[in-house]
Amino acid sequence: MAVPIILIVALIAGIISIVLAIYFRYLVLKEDPGNERMQEVAGYIEEGAKTYIKVQYKVLGIFVGLLFIVMLFLPNLTNLGTLNWEQALAYLIGSAGSMLAGWLGMYVGVKANTRAAQACTKGTKAGFDVAFFGGAVMGLAVVGVALIGVSIIYWIFQSPLVVLGFSFGASSIALFMKCGGGIFTKTADVGADLVGKAEYNLPEDDPRNPATIADNVGDNVGDIAGMGSDLFDSYVASIVAAMMLAAAFGVIGTIKAPFADVTLTPAGTSVFIITPIVFCGVGLIASLIGIYVIKNKGSEEPGKALNTGTYIATFIYITLSAVVTIILSIGIGTEEIGLLWRIWGTSAIGLGAGIILGFTSDYFTREDKTPTKNIAHAAKEGHAVVILSGFSYGLLSVVPPAIGVILAMAISFWLAGVFGVAMAAVGMLAIVGTIVTNDAFGPIVDNARAIAEQGELGDEVIRTADKLDSAGNTAKAITKGFAIGAANLTVMALMFSFAEEANITVMDLLSVNVLIGAFLGVVIPALFSALLILAVQKNAAKMVDEIRRQFEENPKILTGEEPADFQKTIDIATKGSLRELIIPSILSITVPIGVGILFGVASLGAFLAGAILSGFVFAVFMSNAGGAWDNAKKWIEDGNLGGKGTEVHKASITGDTVGDPFKDTAGPSINTLLVVMSLTASIFMGLLLLEIFNFGAGLLGKLLAIS
Amino acid sequence: MAVPIILIVALIAGIISIVLAIYFRYLVLKEDPGNERMQEVAGYIEEGAKTYIKVQYKVLGIFVGLLFIVMLFLPNLTNLGTLNWEQALAYLIGSAGSMLAGWLGMYVGVKANTRAAQACTKGTKAGFDVAFFGGAVMGLAVVGVALIGVSIIYWIFQSPLVVLGFSFGASSIALFMKCGGGIFTKTADVGADLVGKAEYNLPEDDPRNPATIADNVGDNVGDIAGMGSDLFDSYVASIVAAMMLAAAFGVIGTIKAPFADVTLTPAGTSVFIITPIVFCGVGLIASLIGIYVIKNKGSEEPGKALNTGTYIATFIYITLSAVVTIILSIGIGTEEIGLLWRIWGTSAIGLGAGIILGFTSDYFTREDKTPTKNIAHAAKEGHAVVILSGFSYGLLSVVPPAIGVILAMAISFWLAGVFGVAMAAVGMLAIVGTIVTNDAFGPIVDNARAIAEQGELGDEVIRTADKLDSAGNTAKAITKGFAIGAANLTVMALMFSFAEEANITVMDLLSVNVLIGAFLGVVIPALFSALLILAVQKNAAKMVDEIRRQFEENPKILTGEEPADFQKTIDIATKGSLRELIIPSILSITVPIGVGILFGVASLGAFLAGAILSGFVFAVFMSNAGGAWDNAKKWIEDGNLGGKGTEVHKASITGDTVGDPFKDTAGPSINTLLVVMSLTASIFMGLLLLEIFNFGAGLLGKLLAIS
Repeated sequence: MAVPIILIVALIAGIISIVLAIYFRYLVLKEDPGNERMQEVAGYIEEGAKTYIKVQYKVLGIFVGLLFIVMLFLPNLTNLGTLNWEQALAYLIGSAGSMLAGWLGMYVGVKANTRAAQACTKGTKAGFDVAFFGGAVMGLAVVGVALIGVSIIYWIFQSPLVVLGFSFGASSIALFMKCGGGIFTKTADVGADLVGKAEYNLPEDDPRNPATIADNVGDNVGDIAGMGSDLFDSYVASIVAAMMLAAAFGVIGTIKAPFADVTLTPAGTSVFIITPIVFCGVGLIASLIGIYVIKNKGSEEPGKALNTGTYIATFIYITLSAVVTIILSIGIGTEEIGLLWRIWGTSAIGLGAGIILGFTSDYFTREDKTPTKNIAHAAKEGHAVVILSGFSYGLLSVVPPAIGVILAMAISFWLAGVFGVAMAAVGMLAIVGTIVTNDAFGPIVDNARAIAEQGELGDEVIRTADKLDSAGNTAKAITKGFAIGAANLTVMALMFSFAEEANITVMDLLSVNVLIGAFLGVVIPALFSALLILAVQKNAAKMVDEIRRQFEENPKILTGEEPADFQKTIDIATKGSLRELIIPSILSITVPIGVGILFGVASLGAFLAGAILSGFVFAVFMSNAGGAWDNAKKWIEDGNLGGKGTEVHKASITGDTVGDPFKDTAGPSINTLLVVMSLTASIFMGLLLLEIFNFGAGLLGKLLAIS
Repeated sequence: MAVPIILIVALIAGIISIVLAIYFRYLVLKEDPGNERMQEVAGYIEEGAKTYIKVQYKVLGIFVGLLFIVMLFLPNLTNLGTLNWEQALAYLIGSAGSMLAGWLGMYVGVKANTRAAQACTKGTKAGFDVAFFGGAVMGLAVVGVALIGVSIIYWIFQSPLVVLGFSFGASSIALFMKCGGGIFTKTADVGADLVGKAEYNLPEDDPRNPATIADNVGDNVGDIAGMGSDLFDSYVASIVAAMMLAAAFGVIGTIKAPFADVTLTPAGTSVFIITPIVFCGVGLIASLIGIYVIKNKGSEEPGKALNTGTYIATFIYITLSAVVTIILSIGIGTEEIGLLWRIWGTSAIGLGAGIILGFTSDYFTREDKTPTKNIAHAAKEGHAVVILSGFSYGLLSVVPPAIGVILAMAISFWLAGVFGVAMAAVGMLAIVGTIVTNDAFGPIVDNARAIAEQGELGDEVIRTADKLDSAGNTAKAITKGFAIGAANLTVMALMFSFAEEANITVMDLLSVNVLIGAFLGVVIPALFSALLILAVQKNAAKMVDEIRRQFEENPKILTGEEPADFQKTIDIATKGSLRELIIPSILSITVPIGVGILFGVASLGAFLAGAILSGFVFAVFMSNAGGAWDNAKKWIEDGNLGGKGTEVHKASITGDTVGDPFKDTAGPSINTLLVVMSLTASIFMGLLLLEIFNFGAGLLGKLLAIS
């Protein structure tokens, strides 16, 4: 089964995007980094981010090394009886690729912030461009590395199972980067707010606050590197899930779907296996064009520009993917051509659903819409009521995107069965280059604003930076909704592919084994969220103590005569985030394996299903509640309901502080958890099904089966 | 198939308990109602409670009437082709029974409070007795009415499907009483705290606060009548689920279980059908003995006395149910006798699990244990951190009871299949008489404390009342964990019975229809919680406005020269709670029917499963988080961390206020929601399966099915 030559589209797109990323990096670096004070601050941030990444990557190195050895000795399903070196090697490459992309993106992020601040002195457009290019480096690096990795590995080994190893690598890095970054950023943010803002009445980003730099570092490691590795992870996982399904159906010889069953030829199968990669290649080209258009638009409205880029990328993706569908149709059967077009349809539906999801979460978190406004008004009744209000709207906001995902899933399934669902996930993530770019734009302008403040660039420039910051926040709200929806469809596809690979014909909730699996699955996102939020709370308490200590021991910090000890606060956030990662990361790998061993593979499948559904509820709820609290506070700070310094404002700060770990730590980390657990199930499936153990039905599962 | 005569045990136990309830009522009423001021306050509370109940029952009358008509025209599954009058009539009786029990219990509750306060002047034991008898009236009325209703209806119609109608009646009342009561009580409580405590620094239960009486009324309608109707509901539902399963297996002729399949004879079937009722009758006798022992113990430690009663009832239940197992064994086959003993075992396991669940929730909410202590310490960092801490511990607290329920389910299933699971639920609820008694004790002593305060009985008496109140709170924490666990097993049993009745052989999560059902099921408790909390928040805001208005328009209220307008605040709470009930109650009935019509009965089954699992997470999380916040505040008020009036205390009040609707409105209402939805599915199943509609596979379900 030769690999169709059109796969080269993805490889070329990947290479172009890496080249462009390097070019954008050059464009950013040649900009003016601003005055001495700004460079000093940016230097602190860069130093802090690098320290964190170094420590993090060192620990990751050990973790990856251990898992590499474990994987080596797993049953080799592509070449039975031999060492599982192909998958283990791909795992190493996947880990390294994710680390590389994260490093590239963050390295530019910490350079772009001060340059964007300086560019703001020339106007909105100039500031926008620098931040946007900085974000684009992350966006393009993520997609480029992922596509090059996936296509080369598939080209060499011609087995989706080996690509699965690559995906698992990306995933285990994402778990650390996303959760760790999330804990880091909120430890610093919450700590800085609790002492600096609340006790000493310092403004946001005040250089006298010892945690200010840690807070800015957190934006980079949490929101740039963390979010990047998260989407890298989902992106690769969606491709792998679809490839594995295509390969599995190729073996059976049919793809079943309500619309029509399709008999697969070997030629058709090899086309379907690479379709996800090719579509993603096309999506990358669409993203590049979108980026080009945004760059040349010269709009004074940054928020609009970002959205326009998304629309353009979507439109181009749909057109270009139709073109490659025609090319892919060459040499395959008529029925298969029909299926190919339906799959093109599902990818378009997925992308459309992603955009709708993004806008739903935007609605629930925008300060000019009812939910956020009501939350702001609830602040009039005090701290408790603002919490209750945000909590309720957060839960309410789960319903529309749930219906959106259900619709996308149902229509895709109708068109092309579970392979269609997997391709909807691929479609949703096809323009991830644009999404990550828009997302990384946010923390860069957030940092730029802080640097403009500390570099004393004046009110005019800060207002410009504020405008960019606000556009960045909206973009972030949209991409967050997008990311959750995409991860959700991806893990559904992974679950279907796991079931297909493990030969699970039925996952029957009336079987007690399966019900137990689903029960545990529904509980795990709650446990995971609890652990992450407790981690932030514990670390933030340490941070609070440290900030108070610095202020008390050296009064000159508060007068501005001596700089605070930034290194110490960064150190607390770094060490804390790593320590608190231990239990969640162990759980995310051992619990699925444990469920499989005790209750069997069907129960493990139901475990994944339960975790996916409940994880969706928790992820959307926490992200949107957090976003809404944040914007309610901002709306009050804009002078509404009395504005800054009032009791209403104080209550809204409580909402924002509670929302911080919701929206930036626990909520988005659930995506990664789900992907890691799903991939763990697939990777360790071979072990579970080994005849000597015969875990297929589970140790306890056998006891609970009805004769 | 004659009904075995031993059913009379249940009937007799029911009658004894009603007689005892009337006797206890007499004992309470003959006590001294205290001084004039106390009687006046108690009079206000009684008046308010009666007003609420009258309005509520009027609305309920219309609702029940409408559903009665709908039910009349549903397909009659016991007597095909005729009007469904038996089930509809049983529905009416069930509704009336639940309303009667609620009325009886609450009527005594509002009389017992002032008498308990007065008795406190004579010592702890005297006060304890009055409150305990008051609570016992509710406990005995609930169980007595339920058992008499179930046994007579089964005796006459000899069809579990007719008993199902009775259960649906109990359930639709519980939905209104529990959610409505929950909204009422927290509207008043939150409103009273926000203005009275926070703005005017009035102490708890201060008579000048216009919402004080409404708050006390709320304790009665929410915690006595609401909790009573909730447990009435679960109790009857657990019996019906087991009866329906026994009847269904009787038709098939086998009960399948991993331990051993058992062939059923007609004689055996009729024994198994009545076993749940008989076991409950025995449980009631055990409860009566437990109540007798508590009454005669004369301990000065009220908390210990309540727990001792629970242990004794448990022990007696296990012994007595073994005795009736021997009696039930007469005349049935050897295999069936073995099954009967295993079922006795599952009921004991269920009861044991219930007690363990109760103590878990006690652990997570006790002020002398780590979680609550850590939450209290988090209050040192301010409002936001105390919220984050409670939120996290609430989520963590889901894990141990989830494992408890899973273990109980697994072992029961191993012993006796799904019938075993149903009997575990029956066992868990068998001593519900004791549970409701202990639970209703809480609001009575809570009210007594308020009345002692307002009747100026002095510090000594208030301290005594406080001691009782604290025991009541612990009892409430335990019964809440118990109630959630029991409801969870009950709805699982209902789901199994629904699947059995609807001939669903498999509920396959790999089928997109079923997955969609499960997805919607997982989302619905989140939606439901959001609606209830928003309801409290909206009504509390109105209450706040009203309290402020009264204080501003009539300054003499604050000086104590003129009484506040209590009627007005009660009116706001009453009307608000009814208005906000509309959407949740409509959803709880239409969503299951809608899922069934669109996606078919298997999807509806998965919908129930999803709702059960996610409902468990939400119910436990919200109840325990709320309880822990409450006790953390109390611990601080006891003088720890600086005590009352400090910033730490204020932060802990925020936690408590957020926790109020969590633990007393949304959390416990989820139980009722789950039971209502499960029963709705069973009641409307006949409609869904009608051949002319052929909804079995669902309108959309047919489209999504693979050929």
